[in-house]
Amino acid sequence: MVTLLTDFGDTDSYVAVVKATILKIDPHVNIIDLTHQVSAQNIIEGAFILGTAWQSFPIGTIHMAIVDPGVGTERKALLLEGNGHIFLAPDNGILSFVIPEDKTRNCLLAQYIADVPKGYTARVLNNENYWLKYTSSTFHARDIFAPTAGHLANGVPPEKLGEIVTSITRFSIIQPSWDNDVLVGKVIHIDHFGNVITTIPNYLLEDNDSVTVFIANNHIERLSLTYGTGTGLIALTGSHGYLEIAIRNGNAAKTLNIKVKDLVKVRRKI
Amino acid sequence: MVTLLTDFGDTDSYVAVVKATILKIDPHVNIIDLTHQVSAQNIIEGAFILGTAWQSFPIGTIHMAIVDPGVGTERKALLLEGNGHIFLAPDNGILSFVIPEDKTRNCLLAQYIADVPKGYTARVLNNENYWLKYTSSTFHARDIFAPTAGHLANGVPPEKLGEIVTSITRFSIIQPSWDNDVLVGKVIHIDHFGNVITTIPNYLLEDNDSVTVFIANNHIERLSLTYGTGTGLIALTGSHGYLEIAIRNGNAAKTLNIKVKDLVKVRRKI
Amino acid sequence: MVTLLTDFGDTDSYVAVVKATILKIDPHVNIIDLTHQVSAQNIIEGAFILGTAWQSFPIGTIHMAIVDPGVGTERKALLLEGNGHIFLAPDNGILSFVIPEDKTRNCLLAQYIADVPKGYTARVLNNENYWLKYTSSTFHARDIFAPTAGHLANGVPPEKLGEIVTSITRFSIIQPSWDNDVLVGKVIHIDHFGNVITTIPNYLLEDNDSVTVFIANNHIERLSLTYGTGTGLIALTGSHGYLEIAIRNGNAAKTLNIKVKDLVKVRRKI
Repeated sequence: MVTLLTDFGDTDSYVAVVKATILKIDPHVNIIDLTHQVSAQNIIEGAFILGTAWQSFPIGTIHMAIVDPGVGTERKALLLEGNGHIFLAPDNGILSFVIPEDKTRNCLLAQYIADVPKGYTARVLNNENYWLKYTSSTFHARDIFAPTAGHLANGVPPEKLGEIVTSITRFSIIQPSWDNDVLVGKVIHIDHFGNVITTIPNYLLEDNDSVTVFIANNHIERLSLTYGTGTGLIALTGSHGYLEIAIRNGNAAKTLNIKVKDLVKVRRKI
Repeated sequence: MVTLLTDFGDTDSYVAVVKATILKIDPHVNIIDLTHQVSAQNIIEGAFILGTAWQSFPIGTIHMAIVDPGVGTERKALLLEGNGHIFLAPDNGILSFVIPEDKTRNCLLAQYIADVPKGYTARVLNNENYWLKYTSSTFHARDIFAPTAGHLANGVPPEKLGEIVTSITRFSIIQPSWDNDVLVGKVIHIDHFGNVITTIPNYLLEDNDSVTVFIANNHIERLSLTYGTGTGLIALTGSHGYLEIAIRNGNAAKTLNIKVKDLVKVRRKI
Repeated sequence: MVTLLTDFGDTDSYVAVVKATILKIDPHVNIIDLTHQVSAQNIIEGAFILGTAWQSFPIGTIHMAIVDPGVGTERKALLLEGNGHIFLAPDNGILSFVIPEDKTRNCLLAQYIADVPKGYTARVLNNENYWLKYTSSTFHARDIFAPTAGHLANGVPPEKLGEIVTSITRFSIIQPSWDNDVLVGKVIHIDHFGNVITTIPNYLLEDNDSVTVFIANNHIERLSLTYGTGTGLIALTGSHGYLEIAIRNGNAAKTLNIKVKDLVKVRRKI
């Protein structure tokens, strides 16, 4: 199985050409679209969405994640193995939500060069024998990543496709933690419904009744269990694994003019 | 074969996660998207689109229809069998265009509790053995409906998945009929082209030449046979089985500012 | 394998109904979406996108290309064979980028009736035995083209589906050429990123350093190799095979207000 995440949109033939290239090499592969509507060149948005999806797929799945404003420049084309999955992506941070960080940074989503952690193997795709014969400098999804996915699906082992690298580009993801009775996080994603997903993990919020959530000059007493309970603004532990802010039958992000990286604060009564 | 209809949009990984969950249980199932662009929480729109599509699929198809603002509340998760197809959906009226009504209501699209008609079997999905191990209260498409679809595709019979219920939630669909020389209906859907689909079934409009259609302070003499005949505003018996209003190479709904539930009148010369 | 290109959008069930109809006849066919977001009734846009994609698919692929404002009128339903691929489309010019022109016209994208060139075979789909039993005059993608695709995939030979025709409708595509040190082309497509694709083929632009590109009152010195090099406005030989104008991490078409059919000029130093 191969998944595709890109910022290619759905108005051109880019996605279809990538699929055709994979299927020419392995006609039996099942290709699943994660999304092609990542905002143009928005690596962090792509990284988050990939992070919400890959674990639902079976062991052995190949994930192509292509938000690649640096295509054709010196940025590497990567193959990452870990947790039984394979990821094909430019080396620009789009795999940040796939690999755990070895240390916590103090700035959300700052880019840096990190060591590839234990249990993961990263390679640079530099064996041209597994690329398309003619390679452009503007469409590596078609010319390098798609044929690589096809050959992997056909049984070619990763070690044939390129050499090991020991560091990769990534974004820092602050893990919030309780500071006495206060927890501070940020908005990491706005979904299709306008639900506001934060960096605060659900497991820090065991006791629904004791917390107050502060966001965009509003506060929400207690957590709700469902989108259909309560009225007005609600907060709940969402299906992505993080605290979410929503409005019943409405669009919370638009209503409150909330944007990615906005602050969220949680206070608990002890 | 499994079809998916949701209001999840295409910018997040929700749809992909549902597909991954089905394919983990049955890797050989063929999943077809009906649409994921139902307006957020618009159950009636989802119901109509499902109603235009399911009959084109082969006997034995499993249709997941998830527009579910009440997810996690006491609304039931349903499995409906009828006409050789299986439908998985929240019990909120989204199956209204799949099941015939036993009596005509006098208000279009009013919600009520109806008996499950003869020839149909409805069940509540309450056997947790066929759900995901950990079930959220916000994403039952992933946690309950998708695994159910996977197990059904794998051959698990419906009777193992839940107990029979005898009534379901639905919306009333007025069947218009001739009152002397006048037929009154309403707008039920605006399609991608701005074509206006009404509740007036084609079979009431056998004689194209004798009718005048009134909508939004306009009238249209005679029905056209195709979108490419006539100029300006045209009316025709559409491919969904209902009277449609269109503009050749244009967007009728935008041009005339027509909305769902607007009145349509047809007069015939006798 | 069957590909689909339409202007049906993704909010209705039209695409799903077409797929269901194909799969009812051949359940094993692999259906790939090219795009369903061609602007409504924009035959030329559909023609260009089809032209950018079909060659990436394996020999034997069946391509359905349905932008069909004349559905139900006297326009023919075509089956075209050529280069080992099969195309199903209304006879309205949507195959213009698939078939070479036998002579150059002097007006870009003018519609005319052309002879079917050597090596290509065109047929009119007039054998009703291979259509749906009941055929509407508004949805031939479902009623004629989809069942035809299904039967072809099942092994029915083209000669059973309709009679040969010797001419088809097409749009002229001017092939620009150097006039001393000047090359004049036009904008043929704006992609999802706002990249501006022109009619000037890459092979006319071998020497990157010597050219200046003029568009929308701007000029660009030299061609760039990638989207990530240079700043501001850049020009490069694109992955479609044509000269492209782009802005690094930006939307060139919006920024410069460029539209399809706008002029592009290239000057070289000799």
